[in-house]
Amino acid sequence: MSKVKKIFLHEKDMPTQWYNITADMPNKPLPPLHPGTKQPIGPEMLAPLFPMELIKQEVTSERWIDIPEEVQDLYKLWRPTPLHRAYNLEKALDTPAKIYYKNESVSPAGSHKPNTAIPQAYYNYKEGVKHITTETGAGQWGSALSFACQHFGIDLKVFMVKVSYFQKPYRKMMMNTWGAEVIPSPSNLTEAGRKILAEHPDSPGSLGIAISEAVEMAAKDENTKYSLGSVLNHVLLHQTIIGLESIKQMEIAENYPDIVIGCFGGGSNFAGISFPFLRHNFVDGKKTRVIAAEPASCPKLTRGQFQYDFGDTAGYTPLIPMYTLGHNFVPDNIHAGGLRYHGAGAIVSQLLKDKLMEAQSVKQLETFEAGVLFANTEGIIPAPESTHAIAVAIREALKAKKEGTAKTILFNLSGHGFIDMAAYDQYFAGKLQDHEVTDLEIKESLAQLEKVM
Amino acid sequence: MSKVKKIFLHEKDMPTQWYNITADMPNKPLPPLHPGTKQPIGPEMLAPLFPMELIKQEVTSERWIDIPEEVQDLYKLWRPTPLHRAYNLEKALDTPAKIYYKNESVSPAGSHKPNTAIPQAYYNYKEGVKHITTETGAGQWGSALSFACQHFGIDLKVFMVKVSYFQKPYRKMMMNTWGAEVIPSPSNLTEAGRKILAEHPDSPGSLGIAISEAVEMAAKDENTKYSLGSVLNHVLLHQTIIGLESIKQMEIAENYPDIVIGCFGGGSNFAGISFPFLRHNFVDGKKTRVIAAEPASCPKLTRGQFQYDFGDTAGYTPLIPMYTLGHNFVPDNIHAGGLRYHGAGAIVSQLLKDKLMEAQSVKQLETFEAGVLFANTEGIIPAPESTHAIAVAIREALKAKKEGTAKTILFNLSGHGFIDMAAYDQYFAGKLQDHEVTDLEIKESLAQLEKVM
Repeated sequence: MSKVKKIFLHEKDMPTQWYNITADMPNKPLPPLHPGTKQPIGPEMLAPLFPMELIKQEVTSERWIDIPEEVQDLYKLWRPTPLHRAYNLEKALDTPAKIYYKNESVSPAGSHKPNTAIPQAYYNYKEGVKHITTETGAGQWGSALSFACQHFGIDLKVFMVKVSYFQKPYRKMMMNTWGAEVIPSPSNLTEAGRKILAEHPDSPGSLGIAISEAVEMAAKDENTKYSLGSVLNHVLLHQTIIGLESIKQMEIAENYPDIVIGCFGGGSNFAGISFPFLRHNFVDGKKTRVIAAEPASCPKLTRGQFQYDFGDTAGYTPLIPMYTLGHNFVPDNIHAGGLRYHGAGAIVSQLLKDKLMEAQSVKQLETFEAGVLFANTEGIIPAPESTHAIAVAIREALKAKKEGTAKTILFNLSGHGFIDMAAYDQYFAGKLQDHEVTDLEIKESLAQLEKVM
Repeated sequence: MSKVKKIFLHEKDMPTQWYNITADMPNKPLPPLHPGTKQPIGPEMLAPLFPMELIKQEVTSERWIDIPEEVQDLYKLWRPTPLHRAYNLEKALDTPAKIYYKNESVSPAGSHKPNTAIPQAYYNYKEGVKHITTETGAGQWGSALSFACQHFGIDLKVFMVKVSYFQKPYRKMMMNTWGAEVIPSPSNLTEAGRKILAEHPDSPGSLGIAISEAVEMAAKDENTKYSLGSVLNHVLLHQTIIGLESIKQMEIAENYPDIVIGCFGGGSNFAGISFPFLRHNFVDGKKTRVIAAEPASCPKLTRGQFQYDFGDTAGYTPLIPMYTLGHNFVPDNIHAGGLRYHGAGAIVSQLLKDKLMEAQSVKQLETFEAGVLFANTEGIIPAPESTHAIAVAIREALKAKKEGTAKTILFNLSGHGFIDMAAYDQYFAGKLQDHEVTDLEIKESLAQLEKVM
């Protein structure tokens, strides 16, 4: 009965540097290209959108990046986050596997997103930026950045994917509470939005479209910068604090994971939990399997194509080397709004291409089944995004049971589901269905892409 | 910059006994009376509603009660909870006061309520109970008991105050997720409910009415027990784990509170944080001020009368010696649904009568102002109930500033507000108003009560 369930880390043991995986990758990610010239872009092309310090972090090959003291100080409002051993879940599954989860749900916004929102707002503040635009899917990123911008006195406009804007009204209210303005996307405020609305007046929106709107607004105003909650290298960098803390906590637990799992939208929480463990694969000969859990309705890692594509729908961003379904792909309206993104970012795409990580797709009903089992055993109602990681953890725990191996599994609980209860309500009412995208849909979306390139 | 913000307690240091304050009170609380005979009731009168172990705890004068290992084990899903130093809030207030808060928002249901839900479900389970009824105001208690009953395989029916049922739909969904049935109260399922509906078809409900319904349903079925989330001695007992942990954490912080604050509905979170500190007032000569923060629209402690009254609206319960506004008092529809209760419970009432604690009332707009400041500084969006404690902590911190004294203030953050965002939305939209109950309303409600007694 006296088994320790939660491993806390004292604030003085919180990591003071982020880990940059590009320093250790056997093959470096390909460079982003200018869409017109198809030549690698220089930092100066990103300057209208980002402060210089973040651009430096985007392209650096330094292995360790110092976390500014002011950022550390704000992190400590909730960090280090606890690492839990899921004894009750293990018992329910009757598995010999040891299941651990890192609990990022205890942050102000209820997810891992403040880990990068705070440094991004901080570097903008240091360079005198007063206005920022961004996009948000399920609203986790938007609310995290609202909290961060409010702290540093920066005005924030958030383009929120329309389907989530209506599915998750409480997220909008949180952003308002932290002083941000929230606009359902596609909107009439931008050319990109107006174009989509003209063609598809009922468009549910997508992250790709919302990014186009936020980028357009920032690019057109020299006093406004743009901030992205995933995909880019500097965003993934900031999230590595999750895995760096986890390594220390697994040491305290006198254990080390055979398998590390994160759900996958743009890649930030997945990178956060897994990159520090991949480092040990690269430099210490560890053999941890690292698995990205993506929705079956948006399967860029398991069924997409590796090639250059835009990060947004309108084609405003540089071309990024990525596993993609095509930047015009509009995923089904699943409740895991944070995972509805067409592409994967340069680093993760290279890692997957080089078979240094794995990916699994999960259908919506399986994710909710996993989420309810987790809520009933471990007590925390998980965000629909996080249920993808739980579902894959359960798959692997049941596989371990079949094989009779006491595998150690670690997954990232990226966020709680308190604000996603309507999704659970629909699940219990039998109103949710599995939607798997067809081969034809993917083929058509990618064909459209080839025409553009 | 290296000031420690959060004090964690290791699981092995979690208290293993609850503290029973009646052992140390200078004047013991008066006994509950039978409404017919006006004689003290014996434990046997409570047997139809509660399992024997809880009845024993209700009347015991033992100082320390062992926490069963199975309960400790479930507590450890989230306990010990962190104690935070609110540096950012102190800075915003520019106060010399040191402000600490105990963070009970990290539990499965998002509040302190599971602290008693789990032992109550456990003792019922141990005595073979298969069905339980209860009531809930804002839904914190109902969701906590849903989680606990689900764990022990007990079927649960929750009568939820109607105004909260519609204000807080996500709470109902949480209860459903943990397998409970939720009924808006007043309902047609009970005589008490039907009587209210006949007189007031649009009744918003109240905790008093919902208790009547739940008690009636349990009393009429010998296979069903009843469970209460506050007011009773055994409930307050279970919550003392909050204060007992806090004492250990304040020791680690090398500090001790001059002032301890909890919001006040039925008294359980207030008792939880404060009774262990009151013990040190009683036995060690400490002089900590202990303050209950109640809503101005339901001011039983500051403007009620000390006398015997029913715990519920229909008059099904024993007569309890309490500060009360009268059991027919229906408070205004404030968003702090958990504080809309007419009376105060025997122990707290005796303490207040003996001037061993204080009470302050707070108007709704002041509470939301305090809640927004807390969200903007400390990052956690508090439950509307908890904002009452924050508001009083802010008052005391500003008083300390005026006096130039570095007072140490500790309050209980009883829960988060993720599920109460609609209340914040209305606040920002300017739709909330202060409602202070008039002297005449209180006088009339108490006059009605005198007729009954």
